[in-house]
Amino acid sequence: MRRAVRERSIEVAGFRFGAAGCGIKPSRRPDCGLIVADVPATAAAVFTRNRFAAAPVILGRERIRGGRLQALFVNSGNANACTGAQGLADARRTCRMVAERLGHVGRPRRPLSTGVIGVPLPMARVERGVAAAADDVSAAGLWRFARAIRTTDAFSKVAVERVRVGGRPVTVAGIAKGAGMIAPDMATLLVVLVTDAALSAAQARWLAREVAGGSFNELSVDGDSSTNDSLYVLASGLAGNPIARRHSELGGLREGAVRVGEALARMVALDGEGATKAVTIEVSGAPSVRAARSVAESVARSLLVKTAFHGADPNWGRIACAVGYSGVDFEPPQVSIWIDDVAVFRRGAGRSGTAARARRRMKRDEFRVRISIGRGPGTARMITSDLSPAYVRFNSAYTT
Amino acid sequence: MRRAVRERSIEVAGFRFGAAGCGIKPSRRPDCGLIVADVPATAAAVFTRNRFAAAPVILGRERIRGGRLQALFVNSGNANACTGAQGLADARRTCRMVAERLGHVGRPRRPLSTGVIGVPLPMARVERGVAAAADDVSAAGLWRFARAIRTTDAFSKVAVERVRVGGRPVTVAGIAKGAGMIAPDMATLLVVLVTDAALSAAQARWLAREVAGGSFNELSVDGDSSTNDSLYVLASGLAGNPIARRHSELGGLREGAVRVGEALARMVALDGEGATKAVTIEVSGAPSVRAARSVAESVARSLLVKTAFHGADPNWGRIACAVGYSGVDFEPPQVSIWIDDVAVFRRGAGRSGTAARARRRMKRDEFRVRISIGRGPGTARMITSDLSPAYVRFNSAYTT
Repeated sequence: MRRAVRERSIEVAGFRFGAAGCGIKPSRRPDCGLIVADVPATAAAVFTRNRFAAAPVILGRERIRGGRLQALFVNSGNANACTGAQGLADARRTCRMVAERLGHVGRPRRPLSTGVIGVPLPMARVERGVAAAADDVSAAGLWRFARAIRTTDAFSKVAVERVRVGGRPVTVAGIAKGAGMIAPDMATLLVVLVTDAALSAAQARWLAREVAGGSFNELSVDGDSSTNDSLYVLASGLAGNPIARRHSELGGLREGAVRVGEALARMVALDGEGATKAVTIEVSGAPSVRAARSVAESVARSLLVKTAFHGADPNWGRIACAVGYSGVDFEPPQVSIWIDDVAVFRRGAGRSGTAARARRRMKRDEFRVRISIGRGPGTARMITSDLSPAYVRFNSAYTT
Repeated sequence: MRRAVRERSIEVAGFRFGAAGCGIKPSRRPDCGLIVADVPATAAAVFTRNRFAAAPVILGRERIRGGRLQALFVNSGNANACTGAQGLADARRTCRMVAERLGHVGRPRRPLSTGVIGVPLPMARVERGVAAAADDVSAAGLWRFARAIRTTDAFSKVAVERVRVGGRPVTVAGIAKGAGMIAPDMATLLVVLVTDAALSAAQARWLAREVAGGSFNELSVDGDSSTNDSLYVLASGLAGNPIARRHSELGGLREGAVRVGEALARMVALDGEGATKAVTIEVSGAPSVRAARSVAESVARSLLVKTAFHGADPNWGRIACAVGYSGVDFEPPQVSIWIDDVAVFRRGAGRSGTAARARRRMKRDEFRVRISIGRGPGTARMITSDLSPAYVRFNSAYTT
């Protein structure tokens, strides 16, 4: 669904952002984004678990080990996935181009990539894009960068929080790309969090894991987890806070970063290709967190549930059915289901006379489905979308 | 998709079939089916693993233990699932009605049920349906029975094979109901296999497992496994063959029954709500059968793959991506993918110039996707359908 977002100017000390269109996308829209750190930033990342990791993911895993990064180039319109040795060579060459253009030769930088799987990168165009994006960088360019990394996204995804670390004001800004092919264990997402906080490399890694685990791993738009999912954290250190001695001193930063992550995750769910609703599935009373998660995933991924969401059809039978085949053990008479505040199913049986009220909740852009399956301590949450005919039409004709 | 099936008359010695419309379906179409065995038949069954097993499944599990069955009543239009104690009482009462009407009091019979989940059975109508179906039974009524158990099925599903057991000609006929909500571990299927072979109860159980494991567990239309899935085998013994001493003597019967099962499974895939294609996913070279099955399921369930099937889009990147997130370990350079005979992806890289030929294969009603992920011994097969806008439209407005 389209969503109007007011583009407030966002700046994060120590970072400049650039964008360019180099013709990788046939539409001629911007398809190259570049983030440049004025000083080498502390960096960490979390990547897709897909075994067909794309070339930029393979390279990213290798290079993030150093914990420092000074430039991050993103092209959209081509994922450079399943492109074999050539893809990896192209990713390395892209890195070299960026370094040469920025005068960073010998310093760490990182390419990301997104778009159609399996098509080799058009390197002549990439070279032009690197040059143009490098010429474009400015401290005020964050929204331009956000637009450039979009593929099928209906809108740009940006969120920002201001928190305090060690007594100093700190900014955390997040930029995300992602719509279709979203699943747990990372949506098809490219997420970059930039902050002016000073962090150690270990703290940046911790923050990346906290943000990934707390929001993006709860997303399930179509159950397909992609070859390119990457979440980067870049910290310039220009806020001037002293490096924290322990993670507990970074509670405020963690909360701010997770809020940024959650805001971006909801934007991605609402932007699911052809999606009209973002639905949060909350499971409680499971024997364990793992069991709760299995139930939430089973419901969030069910085509019959997602089509019922689309039609605002309070068909709790489909939800109960998906709970039933989740592989989790429970006693049917202990299961209850709510649509927002409407208890449609109590202790194993449907409640008559609730359909009209539940339907009104389901006509909203966002609603919750709460499922209690017993008295255990396990809880979990998933964010999903409805499944519309537009999704199918859109995805039936993607490369053609 | 609609499919013309020539309704050849099928008779199986020892069985009579009846149908009636009693108003459970608002459409007034036939909604009650009854199979009567002239002598108590040897019987076995395989049921859904869904924890919300419907009342007829709960009752069926309990009563099948005796290994004999003389009547099987099926109503469509109401699943009697998630209906609690009332549902179970209604299922028991339906059994009693059937027994009284047929003069079988004290003998074993079995109810099945299918349709909308969560609505209590309208017992007054069921009583009329039992009476009318009992009056209707005849040896030639198999197709009438097949029509009566349909819910959203676009066509009746019947298959028959003639084989020899112990030197005697034997008939195996199968009747299935199923379209939407199909997943492995039994499609939302009601399948009844009737044969005039003489079998022990243990042989009937073995045959039911062989048929379920070899065909219906390979079906994945929308990944939702239902509350009511049941597969029954009824054997009248009237073919007069001697009871086999070991399963190996029943190889011909097993093959015939599995062929009946496969034919019915393909009919169900082609009848997937809004489906236009039946696609067989074949995986080889996996470390184990279990791993091969995970890969096949991951591909068969991917929305992006199923929408690409609908658009005849040879987007092997989506197939590779689903292989990649299946959780199975493999080396990307060892993976190859074929669309029928067209190798679109060889040893980890796409093959250019194959798209047009692959697209022609994908425009057919049925095609295969073969995936080799290495040199292991594990193979698996799944039958799936494409995902069309019609599926979503249909399922967005099911109870409304």
